Amino acid sequence: MAIRAEWIAVDWGTSNLRAFAMRGETVLAEATSDHGMSRLEKPEFGPALMALIGDWLGEGVTDVVACGMVGARQGWAEAPYSAVPSAPLAGNAVLVGGTDARVRVFIVPGLKQEKPADVMRGEETQVAGFLAKNPNWDGVICLPGTHTKWVHVSADEVVSFRTFMTGEMFALLSKASVLQHSVGEGWDEAAFEDGLSTTLSRPESIGAELFGIRANDLLNATPAAAGRARLSGLLLGAELAAARPYWLGQNIAVIGDAKLSEIYAKALKTQGGFVSVANCQEMTIAGLAAARNLLG
Amino acid sequence: MAIRAEWIAVDWGTSNLRAFAMRGETVLAEATSDHGMSRLEKPEFGPALMALIGDWLGEGVTDVVACGMVGARQGWAEAPYSAVPSAPLAGNAVLVGGTDARVRVFIVPGLKQEKPADVMRGEETQVAGFLAKNPNWDGVICLPGTHTKWVHVSADEVVSFRTFMTGEMFALLSKASVLQHSVGEGWDEAAFEDGLSTTLSRPESIGAELFGIRANDLLNATPAAAGRARLSGLLLGAELAAARPYWLGQNIAVIGDAKLSEIYAKALKTQGGFVSVANCQEMTIAGLAAARNLLG
Repeated sequence: MAIRAEWIAVDWGTSNLRAFAMRGETVLAEATSDHGMSRLEKPEFGPALMALIGDWLGEGVTDVVACGMVGARQGWAEAPYSAVPSAPLAGNAVLVGGTDARVRVFIVPGLKQEKPADVMRGEETQVAGFLAKNPNWDGVICLPGTHTKWVHVSADEVVSFRTFMTGEMFALLSKASVLQHSVGEGWDEAAFEDGLSTTLSRPESIGAELFGIRANDLLNATPAAAGRARLSGLLLGAELAAARPYWLGQNIAVIGDAKLSEIYAKALKTQGGFVSVANCQEMTIAGLAAARNLLG
Repeated sequence: MAIRAEWIAVDWGTSNLRAFAMRGETVLAEATSDHGMSRLEKPEFGPALMALIGDWLGEGVTDVVACGMVGARQGWAEAPYSAVPSAPLAGNAVLVGGTDARVRVFIVPGLKQEKPADVMRGEETQVAGFLAKNPNWDGVICLPGTHTKWVHVSADEVVSFRTFMTGEMFALLSKASVLQHSVGEGWDEAAFEDGLSTTLSRPESIGAELFGIRANDLLNATPAAAGRARLSGLLLGAELAAARPYWLGQNIAVIGDAKLSEIYAKALKTQGGFVSVANCQEMTIAGLAAARNLLG
């Protein structure tokens, strides 16, 4: 039997496009493509979306609610940032003009912070989803990824946030730097923990510790799995040291890829944090449902 | 008139091959190619060298003294590291077998440090050249580059050293990360100094400050020249903060590319350091001359 969506939730990031056929808050079907924002010119967004969701459309007009880099200046239609402090979905979703007549497409705005300058697109929707499922929750939400976000939430508002390039640094250093020869597949928990504690206590040492991964390979034939785990530990320790004002003594929720969230949660627990982990996709969908309810 | 070299000095790094026709310590001619170690298989080293120096050879056998990554395991012939503390040229130069009969090729060994694990190849020759020109000099030598080295020298020996990946990080972040859109040509001295002082005083903040370059571009249209200078300042400040135990209160010499050395020297002077700058190529050649004298 054909699927007919009541509405459609879309998570449209830099690298991927994910669409969900929805009935209320229930997912009826999902579809994914690699037509991320970075791969599309403006006229290509509409066709990329319709190729994915066309089969879910019925007779009338179906609402599509999207979040992520699709709303950037280089995206489909710019959805200007809302300034914090603000509710995560305080800004009006932008209606995209000139779409296929069977849909109305709305894009959720991101958040900006004036000082220190910072921006997010997509994570505000996950934060909104988390708050929808956890009313009256105060604390700090960590959203690990290519650009990890630390978000201070109080009284249903985003008070402040900070972005760390930890995920991108890991990818660059492990694939494109001299360390690529000393970082391979696999994992060594002791090497991770040693790296983590090294930069948690002396974050400034990271500059020298990174090359140490290469030197230990050359001099001591340290296995590439240990190199990988140590690199991860050093980068995460430096991030946690810098983000300490965010998480110290706070209620912490981690929302991200399951494996990465587990690494962050475990590291934060060793520092005495109260940590819960939430499913990233569920939070995104809950946030898009909340954004849809705000459309009126 | 054809040039006849008494001996030949060779600086053979990862990316480039530089040869100098020498008479004593006088450079008669020089030649350069992009046949760096990383581009050559073992049988290709000999021909790459002879293509550059063939015209300088006379009737007899000419000595060639080389330093750098040519002596790595993946290079032409491995020249095993000497362990510090040691004179920079303490290890025996390795005679390469099977070369063209008109030359004897020697490769200068690098240095290794057991704990914390670290290695160098090429910089030991520059340090030796500096000490040959500055007898009885004690202090710290900074050799900025892709992998910047800080070298503690006392009583004509290398006591300890530490490598920072600052140059490689700058290249990766400015060319291959999300910051590439916000880092362009040009320079903004105020942005450099602000970045430098930020991470010198709070090195752990670098993780968040890096993404701030992108955010300031998006929110405040900060020019790409300022982005470039700030990135440089942030990375250098973090390095100087981590290397503080090396340079604080010490006699400092900087040996490297002229422009980069000037940046390091200026930053160190703002911290009250006694800094002199030495020419990188001159030190390499002086070091290779010293290595030749040790051949006996």
